[in-house]
Amino acid sequence: MTLKIAHLGPKGTYTEAAAIAYADTALIGTPVSLQPYPSIAQTLQAVASREVMLAIVPVENSIEGGVTMTADTIWKLAATLQIQQAIVLPIHHALISIATDMSQIERVYSHPQALSQCQQWLQGSLPHAAQIADSSTTAALTMLSSQPQAAAISSVRAASIYNLPILAHPINDRLDNQTKFWAIGLEPTLAGNCTSVAFGLRSNTPGGLMTALGFFANRGLNLSRIESRPSKRSLGEYLFFIDIETDVDNCPALKSALADLTAYAETVKHFGSYYTTIVDPA
Amino acid sequence: MTLKIAHLGPKGTYTEAAAIAYADTALIGTPVSLQPYPSIAQTLQAVASREVMLAIVPVENSIEGGVTMTADTIWKLAATLQIQQAIVLPIHHALISIATDMSQIERVYSHPQALSQCQQWLQGSLPHAAQIADSSTTAALTMLSSQPQAAAISSVRAASIYNLPILAHPINDRLDNQTKFWAIGLEPTLAGNCTSVAFGLRSNTPGGLMTALGFFANRGLNLSRIESRPSKRSLGEYLFFIDIETDVDNCPALKSALADLTAYAETVKHFGSYYTTIVDPA
Repeated sequence: MTLKIAHLGPKGTYTEAAAIAYADTALIGTPVSLQPYPSIAQTLQAVASREVMLAIVPVENSIEGGVTMTADTIWKLAATLQIQQAIVLPIHHALISIATDMSQIERVYSHPQALSQCQQWLQGSLPHAAQIADSSTTAALTMLSSQPQAAAISSVRAASIYNLPILAHPINDRLDNQTKFWAIGLEPTLAGNCTSVAFGLRSNTPGGLMTALGFFANRGLNLSRIESRPSKRSLGEYLFFIDIETDVDNCPALKSALADLTAYAETVKHFGSYYTTIVDPA
Repeated sequence: MTLKIAHLGPKGTYTEAAAIAYADTALIGTPVSLQPYPSIAQTLQAVASREVMLAIVPVENSIEGGVTMTADTIWKLAATLQIQQAIVLPIHHALISIATDMSQIERVYSHPQALSQCQQWLQGSLPHAAQIADSSTTAALTMLSSQPQAAAISSVRAASIYNLPILAHPINDRLDNQTKFWAIGLEPTLAGNCTSVAFGLRSNTPGGLMTALGFFANRGLNLSRIESRPSKRSLGEYLFFIDIETDVDNCPALKSALADLTAYAETVKHFGSYYTTIVDPA
């Protein structure tokens, strides 16, 4: 049976590259079918409604930070969704256009995170071009073949898929640019070296977050990530997304820390334990 | 002498409305001149380079969370910039267009935060319209007068400034939508009921963030906000932006907590103590 994997489309996105890397390392021998969706939220909803078996979603970039759409959607759908694996992908952006000269370019299209990751380069090399935020890094590629005044920021791989020329590469302001993705499915996973949970606190008591973090720190458990998101109820009320460097099954300390957190917090959502694959920057 | 205040433009943005509210409450009798800039970063740079006296910048929205451009820029320019005051503004979005019927609308322009705040309404009322992310809520308004197939999400005030019709209002998914802004200048301010600092930790030691937060919690000091941003050095390394509910001058406990934090952290940046003005939703 072919395993369907949802990702942000259209074809050629970094999320699709992460999906291929995941299939190549974690699903060897399983026939897979990649399914592009127009938004990250829709890829996660496709898993929850069992249209697909897995979704690959971006979690955070080393320069631009957390992907808020992923955090907000996984919080809503947490009752069903479980992280199967993390995939860390090196991100090297290219400027793609049929323009024969950079001075022809009037508009640069890309995902807002990719535009942000190339700000210094854009200000130096294309200071007068309008930067147009798109739903993905590849959404504009189909129209580039007829418009020399337009360019897109996407990957070398995407330029090759759409048979378009590369004018400059790499153009990201920091060469050590990485994005972490999650492979998300419905199966509970309790083994790995990282565990992700999110929680909302009962009220804004002094030191509420410190108390919550203390359940982990006092047991020697390290947090490798913390991200706050608004509760969407009122300013100053937050949800916290944390990654703990250990797995639930093999760590009694984590089990008891999570029990303490569950008793203390208003809501705790468990996203599972999983391993991380780091894709070679080759 | 006229006091120049920089804000995200063009004319009519919510940031401009916050600037007017600030001038009306904090600068009574002082002649002010509002100066629109094309980006939040440029408004802050204009203060640092003394082109203007103050900048008004969005900090966080109750639904969409922190404004990352503001956090990243104030971290870079912290040596000079100080928060003078916070302004909390109710945000009610309108759909602005010369279309005579909603079915004519093919494209909706706005700032990405405003588009996000109206997602449910857009999916219900304009499911087939392309959502185009713009540099501000008012950037598209000048071209609307000739394009019935285009619409923008902006304020009732902006519709009136640009003399454009409102097709629907309010269209934000949650009516209690608020954005907090900061008035930022060069003067050190040490009085108020809120103090903002940011810090980066020396290394990822277990419990590093908990230790840092403990300096405040153990002295009974409450944090009203915490936001993490990537250090931009590597995945899993963060800067933390916190607001503490007290002022430096009148609080020896805060002074000693900040001294402990300065000794413990790799870098601490002080943005000052200030009061908050809540603008009436009238």
